[in-house]
Amino acid sequence: MAMITPRLYFAKRLYSGVSSNVKAQKYVLTKYFQGEPKKSDFKIVSEELRDLKDGEILAEAEYLSVDPYMRAYMIGYKLPTDMIGGQVAKIIASRNKSYTEGTYITGSFGWRTHTICNPDDISNKAGLLPITTLPDFSPHPVSLALGVLGMPGNTAYFGLKEICQPKSGETIVITGAAGAVGSHVGQIGKIMGCRVVGFAGTDEKCEYLEKELGFDRAFNYKTVNIKAALKEGCPNRVDCYFDNVGGEISSTIINYMNKYGRVAVCGSISSYNESQLPKVSILQPAIVLKELKIEGFLVNRWTDRWNEGITANLSWLREGKLKYQEKIYHGFDNMVDALVGILRGENTGKAVVKVK
Amino acid sequence: MAMITPRLYFAKRLYSGVSSNVKAQKYVLTKYFQGEPKKSDFKIVSEELRDLKDGEILAEAEYLSVDPYMRAYMIGYKLPTDMIGGQVAKIIASRNKSYTEGTYITGSFGWRTHTICNPDDISNKAGLLPITTLPDFSPHPVSLALGVLGMPGNTAYFGLKEICQPKSGETIVITGAAGAVGSHVGQIGKIMGCRVVGFAGTDEKCEYLEKELGFDRAFNYKTVNIKAALKEGCPNRVDCYFDNVGGEISSTIINYMNKYGRVAVCGSISSYNESQLPKVSILQPAIVLKELKIEGFLVNRWTDRWNEGITANLSWLREGKLKYQEKIYHGFDNMVDALVGILRGENTGKAVVKVK
Repeated sequence: MAMITPRLYFAKRLYSGVSSNVKAQKYVLTKYFQGEPKKSDFKIVSEELRDLKDGEILAEAEYLSVDPYMRAYMIGYKLPTDMIGGQVAKIIASRNKSYTEGTYITGSFGWRTHTICNPDDISNKAGLLPITTLPDFSPHPVSLALGVLGMPGNTAYFGLKEICQPKSGETIVITGAAGAVGSHVGQIGKIMGCRVVGFAGTDEKCEYLEKELGFDRAFNYKTVNIKAALKEGCPNRVDCYFDNVGGEISSTIINYMNKYGRVAVCGSISSYNESQLPKVSILQPAIVLKELKIEGFLVNRWTDRWNEGITANLSWLREGKLKYQEKIYHGFDNMVDALVGILRGENTGKAVVKVK
Repeated sequence: MAMITPRLYFAKRLYSGVSSNVKAQKYVLTKYFQGEPKKSDFKIVSEELRDLKDGEILAEAEYLSVDPYMRAYMIGYKLPTDMIGGQVAKIIASRNKSYTEGTYITGSFGWRTHTICNPDDISNKAGLLPITTLPDFSPHPVSLALGVLGMPGNTAYFGLKEICQPKSGETIVITGAAGAVGSHVGQIGKIMGCRVVGFAGTDEKCEYLEKELGFDRAFNYKTVNIKAALKEGCPNRVDCYFDNVGGEISSTIINYMNKYGRVAVCGSISSYNESQLPKVSILQPAIVLKELKIEGFLVNRWTDRWNEGITANLSWLREGKLKYQEKIYHGFDNMVDALVGILRGENTGKAVVKVK
């Protein structure tokens, strides 16, 4: 794969001095991933934290996110580098009047326990998960700011609405359908009046999608014939495809689309652990004959509309139209296990790590 | 490949009666193509032509077009069926005041020598090549209405401008660069101030592209390493890719694109003769990480703007900014040879068949 320089980057961290008595721990990536991520690809480093300057806050991570993109993006960084990622943190010290102690925030601080930053610094605003104080999620837990009310929720919201642009009555197919993004996309699809068909990796996930989330059909891609499943699940073929996985299944689905179909490419999880690009059935004949539009996206394209997505998802959540599941791993030491877990498809819904 | 029903269709033909003394000959496809098209896939049928009704014309084909899409689209038709295609024809009898004898027209009449139709019938307007009377092309030959001043020219014009949307200074890569569409796309790219790099199948074609048409670089895809050629020819990587061929070369190019790159998928000639979809390196990782947009198109999407393309291309032609080559096959009996020839890449520029 060609080297890339993702637009994703972190809040500029300012913790080079010495603090009172708090130490931060952080994951530093020292080897590029080969196959599945391994603990030995990282070292955990302790950092003294200095006193706060005017305008700064000290945030203690409460939940750290693990997301498939983490497997793909690190190739764009020079090593060693701090590991990337979003977190929900609690402000435990503040010299910024707009950010008081005890407030929960989100930020792209990476895999670290404590962060000093100035939230007013413009360079803090650009990560996949902008620094924002959390709105009142009650009765839901703050961890949702990493899932249905955060980056994955906005990925589903903007990716489906802006890239797929589904119309009521159309058929949407989703791969990785039981994941944080996929399960959310399907529910928005139903809200928009579409037929929604998902592919997931276990029968239990499929049952959850159909019975709990209201998918019209869900298929276990490991046990069904994909073409036969499409024929059964999509009597009017496929208008929109929300692609989380890439791979041969995507070629099969894209070849089953209708004229002027739209594909939102959100991820390619099936190939993230591969060292060579896998070979799959060619897409171009279908693309040209059916005049398909296929577009990849990163959600930070809509950073300026971030609250629109959060607000819409929160409303649907409160109206009971949007459901979620969280898989919670425990302990800062288990970040790598959690990342490997989501890449293996062990989770239904969003996976997060509770730091302590 | 899934069965399709292309929007492309023919003028509704009205020749069931008996005419004075003219007989039409036409190609009827009786077997779906397997591999390269063969003469035995067709039968040539003679048809008596009836007298004209009010509003009708009788047009005699002078040039017939052979285009790569013909190999791909026939799968969408029930057999036996008249072979599809555009032609330049001369009106040799008319009962329509707007279409006088001696006038040249274009139409999607298929592979046939004579056609009776009513050009005012709305159903005649929808083919890839609408029925239009030819503007004054002088000093250029009327056959250009099948090439640089017809469907391929408009494919290049609209496909590049509307799908790729190149900006001055960007780099455009074109495969099938010496064909009717590709050679035209490259020249519009230069007119728009872009760096233009082409891939073609012989050294002679590459020399023609660089020395005659002003491409910045052209590479023989059969003898170069594609990645090395891209590195050499595209120092700023690739912003726009005009894809005529599909296949592994397209995967390599798409993986060499810049953030927010645009791909116009015009054809997939490398796979048209294959009975199974070939396997190529997966595109999704590049699509998502670089947020690429890939869109297939058929030129009849812009039928309502048809004259805009013709007029622009004619102006550039007259200003000397647009050059062309034609390969002329001779004789109605040689249609299949001509079609096979373009699929093998025997032509530079546009291939047409002079009927007699």
